Amino acid sequence: MASPLIDSLIQQCSRLPGLGPRSARRMVLHLLRARDTQMLALADKLREVATAVQSCLSCGNLDTQSPCHICADERRDKSLLCVVEELPDLWALERSGMFRGRYHVLGGTLSALHGTGPDELRIPALVQRVADGEIQEIILATNATVAGQTTAHYIVEQLDGMNVKITQLAQGIPVGAELDYLDDGTLFTAFQSRKGI
Amino acid sequence: MASPLIDSLIQQCSRLPGLGPRSARRMVLHLLRARDTQMLALADKLREVATAVQSCLSCGNLDTQSPCHICADERRDKSLLCVVEELPDLWALERSGMFRGRYHVLGGTLSALHGTGPDELRIPALVQRVADGEIQEIILATNATVAGQTTAHYIVEQLDGMNVKITQLAQGIPVGAELDYLDDGTLFTAFQSRKGI
Repeated sequence: MASPLIDSLIQQCSRLPGLGPRSARRMVLHLLRARDTQMLALADKLREVATAVQSCLSCGNLDTQSPCHICADERRDKSLLCVVEELPDLWALERSGMFRGRYHVLGGTLSALHGTGPDELRIPALVQRVADGEIQEIILATNATVAGQTTAHYIVEQLDGMNVKITQLAQGIPVGAELDYLDDGTLFTAFQSRKGI
Repeated sequence: MASPLIDSLIQQCSRLPGLGPRSARRMVLHLLRARDTQMLALADKLREVATAVQSCLSCGNLDTQSPCHICADERRDKSLLCVVEELPDLWALERSGMFRGRYHVLGGTLSALHGTGPDELRIPALVQRVADGEIQEIILATNATVAGQTTAHYIVEQLDGMNVKITQLAQGIPVGAELDYLDDGTLFTAFQSRKGI
């Protein structure tokens, strides 16, 4: 048992994802050793982020401004809209740097089990954005899971009859993968979607 | 890439021990989803700990008070002093709840490689505490590593001729261990230190 105050900080940290009691103790000890520099800096940064960050009303991204810096960027292609499940998916695509359009963050996938319906997922907002007319192509970049594909399928239905092209990320063998280590589903999809050279 | 502010928080977090870029992103995302509750609470707690915590001048423990709550506890046995390497060792012994004396935190082990000498380790302070006369038994609870044992040996030398009993934690087979999985060093020590039943 450390002092009650340090203990309560350790407990708070151990509830964070990926941290248990032991790693939380290690993290807190590291911060305790640099109280005046790292610990105070982290406290200030957390407070700054917590108070400054808001959801972008247009795409659902989190930023210090709304519309976010992606939606506000005039150099980005307004005719392309990439639909992702969650914020980390947007971050991953931005890191790759290959997409120059805009995003729409659903906030999850449809799930009867968790009671997540279309209204929780910003799907009506997506339909509205398409109805506004500027978007020419919707790229569905939901995960290649059952839930992700179900959600993509539902979105396709909702956009039926609207004047917009709908595409989906290609499924197949990941770059650098060895056939021997791939699951049957991936191999099956890669075979089905084979292309001429 | 998230917004620059969120990015800088992720980078700050990814420098913490046990966290990499991916786990830092996951942690920050979790906090972003509970900005008003968890994120602000964590910021406040970190600031509170960073400003309130200080080293106990007597034992080296970190606490909101000096002497710390262990040194200040009149119910604890003043004649017993347990010497540990680092703060987590003190925490571990306190969690086990079996020791009712006081502590002396060295702050590391002797290391020629890292240039850690006796003065960096609060060993002179330990000798002074023993010279003050209240302590009757020193329990050396440094780690069972080469560095820990070297440090223990050095302390024994320093306390040579002083009127104090020096003991060390027993080495042997951990409770619940299977012989087949133990390293040779542990088995050797357990054999050497065998006791009559």
